Amino acid sequence: MSGYFSSIAPLRFDPDSDGPAFRHYDPDEILLGKRMEDHLRFAVAYWHSFGWEGGDPFGGRTFDRPWFPADTMELAEARAEAAFDLFRILGVPFFCFHDHDVRPEGASLSESRDRLNRIADIFEARMAEGGPGLLWGTANLFSNRRYMAGAATNPDPDVFAYAAATVRDCMDVTHRLGGQNYVLWGGREGYETLLNTDLEQELDHMGRFLSLVVDYKHKIGFKGAILVEPKPQEPTKHQYDYDVATVYALLQRHGLENEVKLNIEQGHAILAGHSFEHELALARTLGVLGSIDMNRNDYQSGWDTDQFPNSVPETALAYYEILRAGGFTTGGTNFDAKLRRQSLDPEDLVMAHAGAMDVCARGLKAAARMLQDDLLESARRDRYAGWQSPAAQAMLGKGATLDGIADAATASGLDPQPVSGRQERLENLVNRYV
Amino acid sequence: MSGYFSSIAPLRFDPDSDGPAFRHYDPDEILLGKRMEDHLRFAVAYWHSFGWEGGDPFGGRTFDRPWFPADTMELAEARAEAAFDLFRILGVPFFCFHDHDVRPEGASLSESRDRLNRIADIFEARMAEGGPGLLWGTANLFSNRRYMAGAATNPDPDVFAYAAATVRDCMDVTHRLGGQNYVLWGGREGYETLLNTDLEQELDHMGRFLSLVVDYKHKIGFKGAILVEPKPQEPTKHQYDYDVATVYALLQRHGLENEVKLNIEQGHAILAGHSFEHELALARTLGVLGSIDMNRNDYQSGWDTDQFPNSVPETALAYYEILRAGGFTTGGTNFDAKLRRQSLDPEDLVMAHAGAMDVCARGLKAAARMLQDDLLESARRDRYAGWQSPAAQAMLGKGATLDGIADAATASGLDPQPVSGRQERLENLVNRYV
Amino acid sequence: MSGYFSSIAPLRFDPDSDGPAFRHYDPDEILLGKRMEDHLRFAVAYWHSFGWEGGDPFGGRTFDRPWFPADTMELAEARAEAAFDLFRILGVPFFCFHDHDVRPEGASLSESRDRLNRIADIFEARMAEGGPGLLWGTANLFSNRRYMAGAATNPDPDVFAYAAATVRDCMDVTHRLGGQNYVLWGGREGYETLLNTDLEQELDHMGRFLSLVVDYKHKIGFKGAILVEPKPQEPTKHQYDYDVATVYALLQRHGLENEVKLNIEQGHAILAGHSFEHELALARTLGVLGSIDMNRNDYQSGWDTDQFPNSVPETALAYYEILRAGGFTTGGTNFDAKLRRQSLDPEDLVMAHAGAMDVCARGLKAAARMLQDDLLESARRDRYAGWQSPAAQAMLGKGATLDGIADAATASGLDPQPVSGRQERLENLVNRYV
Amino acid sequence: MSGYFSSIAPLRFDPDSDGPAFRHYDPDEILLGKRMEDHLRFAVAYWHSFGWEGGDPFGGRTFDRPWFPADTMELAEARAEAAFDLFRILGVPFFCFHDHDVRPEGASLSESRDRLNRIADIFEARMAEGGPGLLWGTANLFSNRRYMAGAATNPDPDVFAYAAATVRDCMDVTHRLGGQNYVLWGGREGYETLLNTDLEQELDHMGRFLSLVVDYKHKIGFKGAILVEPKPQEPTKHQYDYDVATVYALLQRHGLENEVKLNIEQGHAILAGHSFEHELALARTLGVLGSIDMNRNDYQSGWDTDQFPNSVPETALAYYEILRAGGFTTGGTNFDAKLRRQSLDPEDLVMAHAGAMDVCARGLKAAARMLQDDLLESARRDRYAGWQSPAAQAMLGKGATLDGIADAATASGLDPQPVSGRQERLENLVNRYV
Ligand SMILES: [Co+2]
Ligand SMILES: [Co+2]
Ligand SMILES: [Co+2]
Ligand SMILES: [Co+2]
Ligand SMILES: [Co+2]
Ligand SMILES: [Co+2]
Ligand SMILES: [Co+2]
Ligand SMILES: [Co+2]
Repeated sequence: MSGYFSSIAPLRFDPDSDGPAFRHYDPDEILLGKRMEDHLRFAVAYWHSFGWEGGDPFGGRTFDRPWFPADTMELAEARAEAAFDLFRILGVPFFCFHDHDVRPEGASLSESRDRLNRIADIFEARMAEGGPGLLWGTANLFSNRRYMAGAATNPDPDVFAYAAATVRDCMDVTHRLGGQNYVLWGGREGYETLLNTDLEQELDHMGRFLSLVVDYKHKIGFKGAILVEPKPQEPTKHQYDYDVATVYALLQRHGLENEVKLNIEQGHAILAGHSFEHELALARTLGVLGSIDMNRNDYQSGWDTDQFPNSVPETALAYYEILRAGGFTTGGTNFDAKLRRQSLDPEDLVMAHAGAMDVCARGLKAAARMLQDDLLESARRDRYAGWQSPAAQAMLGKGATLDGIADAATASGLDPQPVSGRQERLENLVNRYV
Repeated sequence: MSGYFSSIAPLRFDPDSDGPAFRHYDPDEILLGKRMEDHLRFAVAYWHSFGWEGGDPFGGRTFDRPWFPADTMELAEARAEAAFDLFRILGVPFFCFHDHDVRPEGASLSESRDRLNRIADIFEARMAEGGPGLLWGTANLFSNRRYMAGAATNPDPDVFAYAAATVRDCMDVTHRLGGQNYVLWGGREGYETLLNTDLEQELDHMGRFLSLVVDYKHKIGFKGAILVEPKPQEPTKHQYDYDVATVYALLQRHGLENEVKLNIEQGHAILAGHSFEHELALARTLGVLGSIDMNRNDYQSGWDTDQFPNSVPETALAYYEILRAGGFTTGGTNFDAKLRRQSLDPEDLVMAHAGAMDVCARGLKAAARMLQDDLLESARRDRYAGWQSPAAQAMLGKGATLDGIADAATASGLDPQPVSGRQERLENLVNRYV
Repeated sequence: MSGYFSSIAPLRFDPDSDGPAFRHYDPDEILLGKRMEDHLRFAVAYWHSFGWEGGDPFGGRTFDRPWFPADTMELAEARAEAAFDLFRILGVPFFCFHDHDVRPEGASLSESRDRLNRIADIFEARMAEGGPGLLWGTANLFSNRRYMAGAATNPDPDVFAYAAATVRDCMDVTHRLGGQNYVLWGGREGYETLLNTDLEQELDHMGRFLSLVVDYKHKIGFKGAILVEPKPQEPTKHQYDYDVATVYALLQRHGLENEVKLNIEQGHAILAGHSFEHELALARTLGVLGSIDMNRNDYQSGWDTDQFPNSVPETALAYYEILRAGGFTTGGTNFDAKLRRQSLDPEDLVMAHAGAMDVCARGLKAAARMLQDDLLESARRDRYAGWQSPAAQAMLGKGATLDGIADAATASGLDPQPVSGRQERLENLVNRYV
Repeated sequence: MSGYFSSIAPLRFDPDSDGPAFRHYDPDEILLGKRMEDHLRFAVAYWHSFGWEGGDPFGGRTFDRPWFPADTMELAEARAEAAFDLFRILGVPFFCFHDHDVRPEGASLSESRDRLNRIADIFEARMAEGGPGLLWGTANLFSNRRYMAGAATNPDPDVFAYAAATVRDCMDVTHRLGGQNYVLWGGREGYETLLNTDLEQELDHMGRFLSLVVDYKHKIGFKGAILVEPKPQEPTKHQYDYDVATVYALLQRHGLENEVKLNIEQGHAILAGHSFEHELALARTLGVLGSIDMNRNDYQSGWDTDQFPNSVPETALAYYEILRAGGFTTGGTNFDAKLRRQSLDPEDLVMAHAGAMDVCARGLKAAARMLQDDLLESARRDRYAGWQSPAAQAMLGKGATLDGIADAATASGLDPQPVSGRQERLENLVNRYV
């Protein structure tokens, strides 16, 4: 290893180490018949770790990186080499990127595309040398001022077309690099004020754009999943991809619920007023659980803090829902997480990921044991056991009517008595595992 | 007028009055070709005004009402008479009620039904004397402990059946009284903890229950609308009817999006992280805007405060969305609002409603003028005018493909430039009206 | 054991048990030279566990307890016996109560006082038999409608006087029972609307009341601490005891900062926009850390959920601050926590406490190890080491002036460089312990 | 007028105008014996209007201004000229600035100071030509990376010194320009994590720094007020100047409560969980109400949106508190407000201010009438009238004791009855004015 991370050796699993190592993440440990690495499918996010400069709304760049500002192809290449250095140190199986993260935008769509492909050449070479695979690619349709009023939902159709061209190019590169998924996050698909917004038209255009993407995926034979990432707000006052249920409604309206899945982020769940496990459980129920961004939000901050996860009890509940859904197929665990802007050192970047991977490993192990022991699930089955009776099933079946059910209930003098929900006892039970 | 409100004369429209009167609400004023009363379609909520005793989680009853606790049919009758006294004083065209508000629950479903019908006899008599119509009826499926774990979504199928019988009886009474709508608010349809919840099963049962209700509506020839009222939480940690988009997703999953509309409450919009006008605009866009509960939430309180509206700028934006949707058909403006628990006097109850009606009248008048002047709408049309071009429309049409659009954009060297969204100027414009 | 909890044997420490037992709470384990029981000083809250009936704003009583509604002295006595049964099962060293929890209010102040003393006779007898001590007593100045507009801050001076009498009686009983502290929570000391509130007068009366309490404490020779419990809102829109800093400002204004300490609740910290550890650290810094209510708030609910703690990482950070403050003196760990209203069974009540005690024990053990290992503290000392230099100290000392410091900084060409804050590495470090 | 705003003529008061004009703000209208301009004392904020480029956490610059990026003295001078053009168009009596807004930072403290003075020369010249006065100056101690871990509260004493030098230079310039106040906003005085923070030391240093500032003010004979601006968070997770009460506690701890006042911002009040009028009323009560930042926060966004005010009911309640406090002395109404980043045009900047000034004028006029009519105040006095009795006053007086009050209350059989708080009627009353 040379360059920015030269002082740091690749991390190994060593539970007793006092130095930099994984204390819990052992890629080869078998859980529920599968290697831990294949369960977790970790990915590093290129943008936060290599593009973000440490700014916030009240201050500029704090990080010193030799590849900043990466506004030339030379610096972009240096950035790419540094990124693969980190990937090797961490031993992650995947990474994720936007076009905007990896190359300076060109003066035209075609120059931007060319530059993207030149960086993809480097990626391809490094991937061939044993570097990580691509969990997903995506297009940045929110940073440039042309997108200030939306991409697919812009009042100007030229922006719609520009966004379409950009996504096409990013899908092509994702396909070429063997990407497992292609993600759309609609950071500007929303509004600042309803006063200047044609909500009906914007929602229609949004669905239309998504349909074009799905059609193109099939056209080029991309086998990965198309994923939408919900977020309720920030940067916009209101974002159309508010949460899992909202995105699902949009998908249904456009007949896409079997074509598109979701990439669900803990921080965005929190901002939408949900727990992460709620969003995961709902997506599982609706059959649209695709992948996760495992970065937490601070519970006292009202914006997206994108912090590395550090709570084992929370990650355990998240992976429990994922295991109940059968685990990831094309999806994985992406860290859409950025260092705190005061964490200046290369060690901070390495250890933030390592700590997060260990937290996830602990959470997964707890989740796997909970599932195997079946105590939670058997309690759940017992609670609903009454619905297995023929009489109960009949109420759900074809012939039943409200008045039929009502007459029977009235005639029988029905007087159902409540039964303890045992919440605290179930919480105690979970605490045996985490 | 005798009894509890005997000191208070019916309110009249008198803009110059110093005493109790409507200063802005003139039922007969014509706006956009329709009487103001027919636009607003005010309703008083029986539960808050006649059932609620002034308790909160940290203290009990504060109100002294001669009909409390209404746990006998005699007191329930006294309560009904007092209610119609208030309706007459206010001159409202509608009221709303739950079964639970109007009669003490009986020892059995059949006794409860009988009691409900006996109170309905009184309602019918008073309504025939010129009393208000029924905007909507509904069943209370949340106060009794049998519903603590849900009604339609209860783990116990007997509770599902009990709820079905109760709703059937309430629909029958609503139908008999000429109700304009029937409402379902799923206060307990949700969960306290995912740990004991079968989300998939509960959501299925919820849709199933709603289908039974819709079928029964048709069976009995009820011509009113079936309305679901979204709320994100409280009393439950998570409520399945979270917000407009979430309910719409549920409706779509069960093929009910053309059968069911929404009753949207300002306070619930706030709790879900939305503005009221957002929820109304979204419902309008989706074609499911049914009726409104025009009671505000305190912006600094994290629970449902159900306060009478007092902001003209806010009601103006709400009625603007309603007018854009063509106005109410079966719906109306219900005050699902309760007095502050320190507002002990009969005058408080009367004047809280009167003030709210005036605020709504001012809001409606502002909204009607804004719509008539067309300044907001012409600005909105201008902003999206580019989409009227054939080239833009083609991108939305059948033959378009992502790569087709992309190739054209790339070839033409497209470089769209942003245009001011003029938000502050539009806000200034609205301020000319409110 | 007979009666309500007869099926449940006293809990023992048994880390390998599969049944009801403490897996982590071992009262006799020595940590930092002190028994675990003496560190944690657990208390059960009489009101939630024996007074609360399971109601919420949308539904009434769910719990069946043989002592409900305890509106006679006979039932109040039965309630007391059941309470001491639970205390024995849990083996807690303390309990806490309001007057309102333990006896029905009498028709007059003197009857209320007599009844309180008759129940206190029972308490005394049970305490003498080895029952727990009294962590704190307090007066309920919020449930009765006379307090709807405040107690000490009521616009009616008679309510101030009534509250004074009530507090006097509760202090007397607390003193008699050997209470370690006396608590004031100002649930109604605040406002619903500023429009009818004389903020200046109310704040003055609040300070005045507190001074009277402190004087009386000294008069009767009560050696325990007077504690104020901050809470930002609920039931009121705004509560004067908003948070630690706000209460401290009030204490200073009335010269009470050395006479009064704080009882800090996790749930109230969350409602005020803080982390629990923030409120504890601030109270430690200000020298007013008295005792804690270790009940969590749901992060997605906007009201006080008063749930039993279940997060080891969170309790560890809380106890870390307490250990840094030197541990409890008169204070302790009270569970101001209520069962979820669906948790109907006696087992729920026992196991909720047992689980909470185990979570606290795990948190305390982690905190003690973190403190002993000194890794966090040495990192903290290092970060601020520059302030140990004489030049740095001089800036804080008497003779320094802004222009003196400015001139020196300018002359020396000062250009300080930022240093990593290492947040993620410190979070990783904490995760080695929890 | 030439340059950026050349197309826009100075605004005049013309209530019937259809074009750009003030419809409500008439500087010379007399309210309560004072000119409206002298009541409101409007100020434009240099940073948002001339420094901010339209970026947000997800996108960069959207605004095209001829003076961007103002990283040379030439561009800084062009920026200054444009600023005074806007001031003239608006006819505002004041402006406000940070050092960072008006000049590029130099390579050293002395170069930065020199540059600041060179720009101040321009200001002085324009102010002499009839330009506005300086409401307040302030130092930007948060944007540069040296301040990432705080200024006065930085772990590195060199940063404390650097900040001291910067504040000294800014105070000097403020003094020279006849500034009415000097403001400190501690954007980085707080923490990201308690784990690396010595709270006690940081709070001490913060008070120390403030004392140095106060001493220096007296030394140079600056007659304006020193103002602290509270904000609870953003950019930090926790800011030490959380809200009015928190800052007041800090001031008291350092004996500065008579030396320092507050600059209170609506948006920051909202973020802290308060209404703006609460913070104003509390500051009035504590005698520390200095000045206001009249920019609103979006109620659905969890970060500081710094929007121009647009709600007359809200500004009316704010000015009502200010009038109750006797009006501004050194303080005024600053718009710490930024355009939405899609508002690209010079007209947007002008009209955003004009609309805000009109909203404030309407609010002030309503507030003045409410105060004059005395209906609110007489209702308030009546509510507390009982406290005027000698017996009530005696409870607040020297000789009273808790047991004395208690004995008298008990002996007299006191049984106070609640009285209506009349909240809705008071809200209706306010609605007659707004
Ligand atoms: Co995020
Ligand atoms: Co993400
Ligand atoms: Co509500
Ligand atoms: Co409602
Ligand atoms: Co609490
Ligand atoms: Co508490
Ligand atoms: Co601000
Ligand atoms: Co400000």
